[in-house]
Amino acid sequence: MAYENLITYDRDPESYKHWSLDVDGEIATLTLTVDEDGGIRPGYQLKLNSYDLGVDMELHDALQRVRFEHPSVKSVILTSGLDRMFCAGANIYMLGTSTHGWKVNFCKFTNETRNSMEDSSKHSGLKFVAGCNGVTAGGGYEMALACDEIFLIDDRSSAVSLPEVPLLGVLPGTGGLTRLTDKRKMRRDLADVFCTSTEGVRGQRAKEWRLVDHIAPKQVFMEKVRERAAELAKESKRPDQAEGVKMTPVKRDVRDDGYSYPNVDVKLDADGRTVTITVKAPTEKVPSDIDTILKQGMDWWPLAMARELDDAILILRTNHEEVGLWLLKTEGDAARVLEADAAVLKNLDNWFVTEVMGMMRRTFARLDVTSRSMFAVIDEGSCFAGSLLELALSADRSYMLDLPDDEENAPAIILGDMNFGPLEEVNGLTRLQTRYPAEDDIHDQLKKRQGEPLVGPVAEEIGLVTFAPDDLDWDDELRIAIEERASLSPDALTGMEANLRFGGHETMLTKVFGRLSAWQNWIFIRPNAVGEKGALKLFGTGSKADFDWKRV
Amino acid sequence: MAYENLITYDRDPESYKHWSLDVDGEIATLTLTVDEDGGIRPGYQLKLNSYDLGVDMELHDALQRVRFEHPSVKSVILTSGLDRMFCAGANIYMLGTSTHGWKVNFCKFTNETRNSMEDSSKHSGLKFVAGCNGVTAGGGYEMALACDEIFLIDDRSSAVSLPEVPLLGVLPGTGGLTRLTDKRKMRRDLADVFCTSTEGVRGQRAKEWRLVDHIAPKQVFMEKVRERAAELAKESKRPDQAEGVKMTPVKRDVRDDGYSYPNVDVKLDADGRTVTITVKAPTEKVPSDIDTILKQGMDWWPLAMARELDDAILILRTNHEEVGLWLLKTEGDAARVLEADAAVLKNLDNWFVTEVMGMMRRTFARLDVTSRSMFAVIDEGSCFAGSLLELALSADRSYMLDLPDDEENAPAIILGDMNFGPLEEVNGLTRLQTRYPAEDDIHDQLKKRQGEPLVGPVAEEIGLVTFAPDDLDWDDELRIAIEERASLSPDALTGMEANLRFGGHETMLTKVFGRLSAWQNWIFIRPNAVGEKGALKLFGTGSKADFDWKRV
Repeated sequence: MAYENLITYDRDPESYKHWSLDVDGEIATLTLTVDEDGGIRPGYQLKLNSYDLGVDMELHDALQRVRFEHPSVKSVILTSGLDRMFCAGANIYMLGTSTHGWKVNFCKFTNETRNSMEDSSKHSGLKFVAGCNGVTAGGGYEMALACDEIFLIDDRSSAVSLPEVPLLGVLPGTGGLTRLTDKRKMRRDLADVFCTSTEGVRGQRAKEWRLVDHIAPKQVFMEKVRERAAELAKESKRPDQAEGVKMTPVKRDVRDDGYSYPNVDVKLDADGRTVTITVKAPTEKVPSDIDTILKQGMDWWPLAMARELDDAILILRTNHEEVGLWLLKTEGDAARVLEADAAVLKNLDNWFVTEVMGMMRRTFARLDVTSRSMFAVIDEGSCFAGSLLELALSADRSYMLDLPDDEENAPAIILGDMNFGPLEEVNGLTRLQTRYPAEDDIHDQLKKRQGEPLVGPVAEEIGLVTFAPDDLDWDDELRIAIEERASLSPDALTGMEANLRFGGHETMLTKVFGRLSAWQNWIFIRPNAVGEKGALKLFGTGSKADFDWKRV
Repeated sequence: MAYENLITYDRDPESYKHWSLDVDGEIATLTLTVDEDGGIRPGYQLKLNSYDLGVDMELHDALQRVRFEHPSVKSVILTSGLDRMFCAGANIYMLGTSTHGWKVNFCKFTNETRNSMEDSSKHSGLKFVAGCNGVTAGGGYEMALACDEIFLIDDRSSAVSLPEVPLLGVLPGTGGLTRLTDKRKMRRDLADVFCTSTEGVRGQRAKEWRLVDHIAPKQVFMEKVRERAAELAKESKRPDQAEGVKMTPVKRDVRDDGYSYPNVDVKLDADGRTVTITVKAPTEKVPSDIDTILKQGMDWWPLAMARELDDAILILRTNHEEVGLWLLKTEGDAARVLEADAAVLKNLDNWFVTEVMGMMRRTFARLDVTSRSMFAVIDEGSCFAGSLLELALSADRSYMLDLPDDEENAPAIILGDMNFGPLEEVNGLTRLQTRYPAEDDIHDQLKKRQGEPLVGPVAEEIGLVTFAPDDLDWDDELRIAIEERASLSPDALTGMEANLRFGGHETMLTKVFGRLSAWQNWIFIRPNAVGEKGALKLFGTGSKADFDWKRV
């Protein structure tokens, strides 16, 4: 277990090193001025507004602050505090000195943070404008690509570029390649030229090639950016007047064998390389009137549960790489979960509840792209109902205890409104739609069973769970399944799960996670990138990479 | 250059080692009885009907024979000549002793051969039935997955399985994972169970899980398979009565610096690591009456050209791994190319011409998934018109010579009917649709220019070519572009191209090539698979793999 240097994602604007968040009416400005000596780990300097995981943690935190603490903000400007330098992307020396696992985990989190901007734009009407007031390279341009619109300063020197291929022998792997074709709808041959150019494209040509939406000279640049941000704010669904909800820190206790939160428990089994994540139902009635909801704020169960689960996912991914199998459990009263779901759905006209819904959606979506095997364990006292049933539907498999002789205590799962739409996956489908690729009308079929407690054999018959062993077989079957899974090649499982989890319909995001990331993973361990004479390794040394020229 | 042990794809039923092709009226039966000692390279035995590249070359040849020599065949049964063993998939010892490049090239070709079966089913109505008369494992099951329907013998021992993950620490990478979810529409949790099981699934459960379409006991097995093949034959568009066209060998001359064919020239530049592939227009009038077409047979230009180009692609991919940049050129009279296209399109009601069209479609489709950079070079004397314009549209970029002072000799490209539908890519779109993701009505827009010779500046303006330098800049610009491209990391280029070539719409096949293959490539170089103690390396030794347990 990696407790010694536990990496957590807690951040607070008061102590940001790299970003500043300024709110002016409907517009928030996030300004990046990276502290060169403020890397999250030692050994590199964050020059030229380049970033590492710590910089991105602050961006993630700032976005959360905008969502929850500043509800009247309708559009966000991302810009730089440096002169003639917007952002140079991920720090190369950090990448060059990181393990494969660190690089991949870093890319996954930055991808999720970019996606969350698009998620907020789509679902909350929080619009993003990149104000690229200088050189916008690599991950810097990928950050801009995640915005609704991109401004580039027209100063005869500032260009946007994705120089990863020619400079580093790796890919623009934070969505860059995919967003060029699928979001910006750039022509593939121009994208080819762009992505093999070190200097990038600037001015009018950048606009013609669809790389940016607007160009403006220095004198009026920020004025134009703000003007456009104000226009986009008009499209926003966020409220004109509303008091924010202060984001208190997530309540996490670190134990010897895991992490405790009020609504989530994380219990590690180091020897078995498994972890049991238990999400707990509300223990009291969940308020559904908006005043009480707002008063509870961060402690309102739907939000508290989602934030704690999100925190647990991030901590496990970053600190416990060898724990390859996550057992997902729930505990408590299913009626309370459904009550909480109803309270969310009833109040979606309120900005805060909309943001809570977004937090739930994004948290469950993290599970789908997490490179760990997941089994849902549906046993006595569990409450896989509504939103918490999504845990079981996210899992690679589910095991449900059947108690044929004890109907009263037999675990049951319950379908609720949350399963039929609001928690869509990054493939744009519900987990039910993803689960039943052969049934076009699965929602209609299953809505008939909504609210009905479904015991093991029934749930298995319908296909909502994988297996429903009875109490005689339960212990052995589960133990063997867990041991078997934990014995398999971690790499093969990661590849297999990435393919099986997203069948059928594809979106830009499934392509970012499924295709682009897979290629990047491959390249990230090839000697041409990371060998002693690889391009990534040698960057900045003045030496030229020595490539194996074989095309594979 | 790798001339010493040149690997070619020429095969002939008379000398098949592994397959037999039997035609009985409307039904052809392809029977696999692998010659254990007939590996294409030394060092392994092909036990249990396992296959290597040589086995698959015969399958590919046999499929071509069925298409062209046996036009009245409407459905094909794939089965095994062994008792209780259908096919054990790709040979593990071959994989374990192969280079990364060999493995990847082998997988690509087997993927293309599987896809070609689906292509024929869709476009020619040639139906495929897998008669799995015994153990059907790994690549054996993936071969069955490429068929329209799968029969499994119900004998209490024969199972279908994809044991790659648990046995070998790699993926079912010949489309297996993707076809489970996207073609068979299997539930993802059942697929998870299936793909982590070494023993697989048999009998009724295999049918319930959607793994197979039919089960039948031994006594009636082949009878049932034939019955079903006969039913599927009724859906076929293939002719009741027709004389086949004998497949003569491709006319290839091996030179010191490349390969010569009647209609294609391949000139290698070993030092520059580039190759120039020149496709030549017909030199004589291309017949368009079906009798003359059938008489010309394999020599009819559209087919001869496609077969030669196909051969060149396969030879270059297999034998010239370091030649990373392919320069695509054409030579001759554009009018003749358009004449040939018209002859094809006019006769699509004829089975032979339909097969020629299929051969053209599949040949161009190979370019799209070839892991080499491609530049189209459109210079004086070229004929990028209609079908040959697809070469330029397949390329990662195109350079077109502008001769402002010599209109007569200025190269022109010409849009033809072939560009608006019949040569769709594996993403289901035309290359024009793929090229212009921002223009939903691109066909309507460009049909207005059909038939018009478009010189460089015009073609560049419309976006059909990337750059159109004039004769003053041409040599330098092209030379620099080529040198630059040839200097970049081969791995980064492969990953970049795989992403940029297929933007937007995804299909099962783009997922097989883009996503599944990328994960497999990654896994194929991870120590957990191919290290000294990796699972693939140790298979069959009795030793257990020693995994690095970190999940990435």
